[in-house]
Amino acid sequence: MFEAAEVGQSVAKEDYEREVAVLRAELLETQTQLKTANFPVIIVIGGVDGAGKGETVNTLLEWMDPRFIETFALTPASDEERERPPLWRFWRALPPRGRIGIFFGGWHTAPIVSRVHRACSRSEMERDLNGIVAFERLLVDDGALLLKFWMHLSKERQRKRLRSLSKDPDTRWRVTETDWKRFKLYDRFRKVSAQALRRTSTGDAPWTIVDASDHRYQRLAVGRTLLERLHAQLAARGSVPSAIAPHSDASAPIAPISPIGERTILSVLDLGQKLDRASYAERLERCQGALNQACRKAAAHQRSTIVVVEGVDAAGKGGAIRRITGALDARMYRVVPIAAPTEDERKHPYLWRFWAHLPRAGRLQIFDRSWYGRVLVERVEQLCTPAAWQRSYAEINDFEEQLIDHGFVVVKLWMHISQDEQLRRFEQRQATAWKQFKITEEDWRNRKRWSEYELAVNEMIERTSTEIAPWTIVESEDKRFARIKVLETVTHAIRDAL
Amino acid sequence: MFEAAEVGQSVAKEDYEREVAVLRAELLETQTQLKTANFPVIIVIGGVDGAGKGETVNTLLEWMDPRFIETFALTPASDEERERPPLWRFWRALPPRGRIGIFFGGWHTAPIVSRVHRACSRSEMERDLNGIVAFERLLVDDGALLLKFWMHLSKERQRKRLRSLSKDPDTRWRVTETDWKRFKLYDRFRKVSAQALRRTSTGDAPWTIVDASDHRYQRLAVGRTLLERLHAQLAARGSVPSAIAPHSDASAPIAPISPIGERTILSVLDLGQKLDRASYAERLERCQGALNQACRKAAAHQRSTIVVVEGVDAAGKGGAIRRITGALDARMYRVVPIAAPTEDERKHPYLWRFWAHLPRAGRLQIFDRSWYGRVLVERVEQLCTPAAWQRSYAEINDFEEQLIDHGFVVVKLWMHISQDEQLRRFEQRQATAWKQFKITEEDWRNRKRWSEYELAVNEMIERTSTEIAPWTIVESEDKRFARIKVLETVTHAIRDAL
Repeated sequence: MFEAAEVGQSVAKEDYEREVAVLRAELLETQTQLKTANFPVIIVIGGVDGAGKGETVNTLLEWMDPRFIETFALTPASDEERERPPLWRFWRALPPRGRIGIFFGGWHTAPIVSRVHRACSRSEMERDLNGIVAFERLLVDDGALLLKFWMHLSKERQRKRLRSLSKDPDTRWRVTETDWKRFKLYDRFRKVSAQALRRTSTGDAPWTIVDASDHRYQRLAVGRTLLERLHAQLAARGSVPSAIAPHSDASAPIAPISPIGERTILSVLDLGQKLDRASYAERLERCQGALNQACRKAAAHQRSTIVVVEGVDAAGKGGAIRRITGALDARMYRVVPIAAPTEDERKHPYLWRFWAHLPRAGRLQIFDRSWYGRVLVERVEQLCTPAAWQRSYAEINDFEEQLIDHGFVVVKLWMHISQDEQLRRFEQRQATAWKQFKITEEDWRNRKRWSEYELAVNEMIERTSTEIAPWTIVESEDKRFARIKVLETVTHAIRDAL
Repeated sequence: MFEAAEVGQSVAKEDYEREVAVLRAELLETQTQLKTANFPVIIVIGGVDGAGKGETVNTLLEWMDPRFIETFALTPASDEERERPPLWRFWRALPPRGRIGIFFGGWHTAPIVSRVHRACSRSEMERDLNGIVAFERLLVDDGALLLKFWMHLSKERQRKRLRSLSKDPDTRWRVTETDWKRFKLYDRFRKVSAQALRRTSTGDAPWTIVDASDHRYQRLAVGRTLLERLHAQLAARGSVPSAIAPHSDASAPIAPISPIGERTILSVLDLGQKLDRASYAERLERCQGALNQACRKAAAHQRSTIVVVEGVDAAGKGGAIRRITGALDARMYRVVPIAAPTEDERKHPYLWRFWAHLPRAGRLQIFDRSWYGRVLVERVEQLCTPAAWQRSYAEINDFEEQLIDHGFVVVKLWMHISQDEQLRRFEQRQATAWKQFKITEEDWRNRKRWSEYELAVNEMIERTSTEIAPWTIVESEDKRFARIKVLETVTHAIRDAL
């Protein structure tokens, strides 16, 4: 979930200034159109302490006309507020149609902080979050443009940030005892936030997780997202009064925002990792033995394992899968290759065929490509609408949660190679008679869309690498290294679950 | 919630036969169109034992072409099924686009039965129900027409039904030990079902509660609802493939179904109840004293009370409210009269102004008309879209749940008089100089829409009389009787909550 926000985005000063000049003008212009539009804009700025939430809001106020923006700071609840249901303070602060309201921390902070300090149980938090989902759905159904930004800093970055703020006499006052106390809870805060973000990242109102390590990047990311979503919503809704407009017009589908930083999770991988032949042979045997043992133990406990293998073409998915199955008795596993859906499958919701393939108790099942096709190939090749694939992140998270609640172990692997290595492997395949079947026109076509796929993978990992079912990225430039990492990841996941 | 299904609907044999002849032909014709349409129809038939679920399904199969309908009976889960997450058995049975699937009991039965037998906690049931809401939303987002019928029998009716089934040698086999065991749990089953129905009755997929006391009525109700919803969905979606169609086309707004039975909750009221002047004077004093005491106690416990007073024009809302306030210190209460929203209020979601009016701790607040205007005047006068008011039942239930969770006492009163009595009061008002201000053109216009309002009230009570915030209907033909009933209802609600 936070992986994509830890790649260290940055924007150079000149680029920032050039971009901001355009962005400011456009934001102001759009804000003018908003005044007569029939929907409000509700912006939630959440995230870790010291991640520049306040500065981001100040920047937005500076870029736009602050007379039409109301901000709501999350101070401790007043006695007036404590005497009403928790959402009351937010209801009274909602901006009217045609205006922008910015909520620091939003309605999400209270359940998260309460859970971090163990002041409520997991199920009490879930209950609050479900109430929040209903509240946000009401807002979106009523026509609101709801934007939720989560400002993220890695633990190391947060430590540095707090330290540098407390060193500078100008900013020292901003770092309180509470901040350092909370920092000690960083890991717990991260875990609870991940749960809360997963639960409240719906198709209607997804979170945008922003890398807060570089201020320029952070501000551009928020400003650009706001501008693009505003444009889309203005285009979709015009100025029809919401109560009269049919429900179908309530909001624009959430289109992906054009990339702001140059880095993605994939671009920062260390693809140089290698294994020599001898260590490989030795480790392969050991790893396969360990996997075999883990699977037997899982079978004895009637626990099933689902391994999702995704990756770029020619990244070595097949070879890695054969190293898994090579360790197992044929009665213990099944490999399910996923191609384009059949005519029958298209007559059902897209998750249907994956439900149909779920294994019985105690088995290991490998999906060679999977339900993630929805947010990869179907997205990039426009085989479904933006609304459909945007919705599916939450649907996929729900699906995997059901598997895990039922006791399944879920392992998700993304195998990655560089564009150069892919070309080398394609050419080699074409040159080798018995490998030619492996390379098709489609592979070359996909290759042309490399950067679109890269963005799709980045967003997929941001939205679906959850605390209960994280993605593991396998650097696959070296096949030996990749195969060992795959075997180890699967084995550890099974062991951890037992 | 079940009130509207206990009014004893019935359909005469000749009417039934005439109606069925037309309905069958239309259903068959529509089923033919469905074959090439791009959505599936999913019908859930839930409800109490002995309520004719099986007969209803058999009737549908008889009326339509059974080759294109699949039925799913809720037998105990097989070992195959137990080895997968609970929804797996339903996923595998989902009908493809162009077909109809009927699910006995649906995915709702397991959590309800489990909770009735205390095999799971309240929060575990809530969790399951939230999973169900997500599942149903996925189906509807994917284009499915999802219809959920709950077959209801009052306790007395269920007892009679089980008894008559076990007397008849032809049907004796159908009543099992389990049925009688479950009957002993009727009250608990009713309470838990009401919770489950409230939680899963969303704007996308509301429950239709069917009075199962008369088979002819029951079958017509199901058949007609199915036909009307099918027509609307076919008109809205045509045959565009769902993945390609924009999300906005996903489903038709749920329009109200034209009435099948002649009875409504209001039509079966005993409006003849009266109080003579002497007993009234005596009881008034006693009731007001009791209310005063209850309110003081509530104030001491910092508990607030919200009294919603709704009713037909001239039913005596004002007089009843004055009898409440007459019992209280002016610092303890506030009366909030609700008229058409102001320009500012229209710039927010419709619930906003009611949130704004919530009282501080320990007060009593009377809403003279309320948020129910959304599903009464705004529905009947078409001041908002069908989608907007349909959605609002669930939003209102959520709102009231938040109030109650926070410790508020919520009392909802519908004051009712006959059409004749209304006319008498209108004429009296016009004849009395100091009462003329109370009667306007609007009152006469509303009166012309009496039957539309009656349907709207009936549906409002069906959808929002929840186990946590039930409606009380006050027979107001006799003002004295009504005032005492109002005072007693409010007093009892406060006492029960403390």
